[in-house]
Amino acid sequence: MIDNPFYSHEFHGDYDLVSIGRLDLEEGGSIADCQLAVATFGTLNDARDNAILVTTWYSGTHQIFRDVYIGPDHALNPERYFIVVIDQIGSGLSTSPHNAPDEIAMSNFPKVRIGDDVVAQERLLREHFGIETLQLVVGGSMGAQQTYEWAVRFPDKVKRAAPIAGTAQNTPHDFLFGKALVEAITSDPGFADGEYKSNADVVAGLTRHAGIWAVMGFSTEFWKQEVWRALEFGSKEEFLAGFLEPYFTAMDPNDLLCMAWKWQRGDVARHTGGDLAAALGRITATTFVLPINEDMFFPVRDHEAEQALIANSELRVIDDVLGHLGLFGVAPTFMQQVDRHLGELLAR
Amino acid sequence: MIDNPFYSHEFHGDYDLVSIGRLDLEEGGSIADCQLAVATFGTLNDARDNAILVTTWYSGTHQIFRDVYIGPDHALNPERYFIVVIDQIGSGLSTSPHNAPDEIAMSNFPKVRIGDDVVAQERLLREHFGIETLQLVVGGSMGAQQTYEWAVRFPDKVKRAAPIAGTAQNTPHDFLFGKALVEAITSDPGFADGEYKSNADVVAGLTRHAGIWAVMGFSTEFWKQEVWRALEFGSKEEFLAGFLEPYFTAMDPNDLLCMAWKWQRGDVARHTGGDLAAALGRITATTFVLPINEDMFFPVRDHEAEQALIANSELRVIDDVLGHLGLFGVAPTFMQQVDRHLGELLAR
Repeated sequence: MIDNPFYSHEFHGDYDLVSIGRLDLEEGGSIADCQLAVATFGTLNDARDNAILVTTWYSGTHQIFRDVYIGPDHALNPERYFIVVIDQIGSGLSTSPHNAPDEIAMSNFPKVRIGDDVVAQERLLREHFGIETLQLVVGGSMGAQQTYEWAVRFPDKVKRAAPIAGTAQNTPHDFLFGKALVEAITSDPGFADGEYKSNADVVAGLTRHAGIWAVMGFSTEFWKQEVWRALEFGSKEEFLAGFLEPYFTAMDPNDLLCMAWKWQRGDVARHTGGDLAAALGRITATTFVLPINEDMFFPVRDHEAEQALIANSELRVIDDVLGHLGLFGVAPTFMQQVDRHLGELLAR
Repeated sequence: MIDNPFYSHEFHGDYDLVSIGRLDLEEGGSIADCQLAVATFGTLNDARDNAILVTTWYSGTHQIFRDVYIGPDHALNPERYFIVVIDQIGSGLSTSPHNAPDEIAMSNFPKVRIGDDVVAQERLLREHFGIETLQLVVGGSMGAQQTYEWAVRFPDKVKRAAPIAGTAQNTPHDFLFGKALVEAITSDPGFADGEYKSNADVVAGLTRHAGIWAVMGFSTEFWKQEVWRALEFGSKEEFLAGFLEPYFTAMDPNDLLCMAWKWQRGDVARHTGGDLAAALGRITATTFVLPINEDMFFPVRDHEAEQALIANSELRVIDDVLGHLGLFGVAPTFMQQVDRHLGELLAR
């Protein structure tokens, strides 16, 4: 167990740690006492039928949703809905390699799949809150993978689904992108096969990892138009050194690797012997598929191919020069689009 | 000086090493005896006015042009033209860090710019072959950078120009991609600040470098459609292990870094105080700008923006799911398109 101050209330505001007990994992092994970090917004009604689940992305937590996505002016309106954001396993707040008990800590942490997260989340919602159905499951990137997993695994529980900038079946290109990210970290001699003493020991690897995100996370136009100037940086180097690098170097390497492994292998067709059409055919939720037009690794066409396999669905493309990391909601037009789409979806 | 068997006639067929004497460099310093590797095809006519210059890309040499681009069935027809392929400085065949005399060997190799290459090439063509004008300058990727540099620096000598999948002014996104490639190599402890004893000492870094090329060099659709099957590989892992990794691990790390530094900083606007329009306005060559539609780091729109600034020019987009590395000419339709465009250009 490593004491990493980033994974704290100071940086992530209010949240609760909820134990769901023992979680047996798809790849074998288990987490004896799985704890999920949960942030809620709004009030669960007496019928317990006004809940929305928000799932989290690689390196993200509930905090970005609190800061950007959720509020009385947004479609994710806590005055109407009980909004539950559950941080994924490996996020650093929920049970993760860096905070796990010794027997599964650090390099001994078991492999976790998207399906394990969704099983854990369903149990938490049911046992802790008494929630049996969800008005909406929504998430971006790895959160989209969890959203799809929810809609395929628990079709009766999901009325609406909104995967943003992420696919139901991870693509081979995405797998290779994940591989490059993983290798940037694990190749750092300070990584020490996962048994470093502090994330600071792996700062070189985490910085290279940030550098690969710079190439793939934004669009070519983001850099060409120098959009980072709107964030009050004076050069792309300052933007890297002042934003992207500190963002990732604060994090725990094993936690990132836990999430990356999951991300690389996300695939709802595991439920149907590899048949993606059959898996997506199970979805009964009204589904809006929300790619970002400038996304370099979850491109629109990959969303389009999956959306065509979902019965009650629409493709709603978000225009954002930031590309994938438009998910941070930096562009003033990003949340306008998300709110319009989610608002229309919730009105269905 | 390192003995690397890859940089030999065995792997690169016939070529000559031509000394152009002392080359003073834009960044300061000089190469006392600059040698350029040159492969020629066809016969120079008595008027010395049937020459075509082909420039080379990052990691590439004349050999790919011999194998794929040049021949009696191609627009680059040695029965009509005297075709000169000059390997760039740092290519491993021309003067390069790994083969340079001790005083500028390895980590002591001076910084070289695209402009230095073009000055060296012009001198070689004039002094060695007596060539004063070129029917065409053509090259892909970094070869496109050299093509633009030729057309801007020596407008009276270039009748036609065909930059393929590369820009006149390198983009910030491309700079960051280059940075990620560089860091994959230099972060390998075996790199030893450039003073390794063999490229084999840096195999881990070169392999990660290949892994980043896998992400950016091809398109997302290349991987999704498993186009590597057409190359008789059984899985994407086999394709990496059997093609992309051995391709790069055979090469010299310092040589790659020499080319990467140049590539990152290619910019014809250095001639005009940063004014790209003014620089491209100098071009008098009939110019066909040939992007590849699936290129992830030299995207079509970046070509389009530059083409609009060139007086006598057309944008001719090549359709190739391979993306940037379509330049290898693997797709049966690639050379058909290149030949059609170059044939039409040469008929102007």
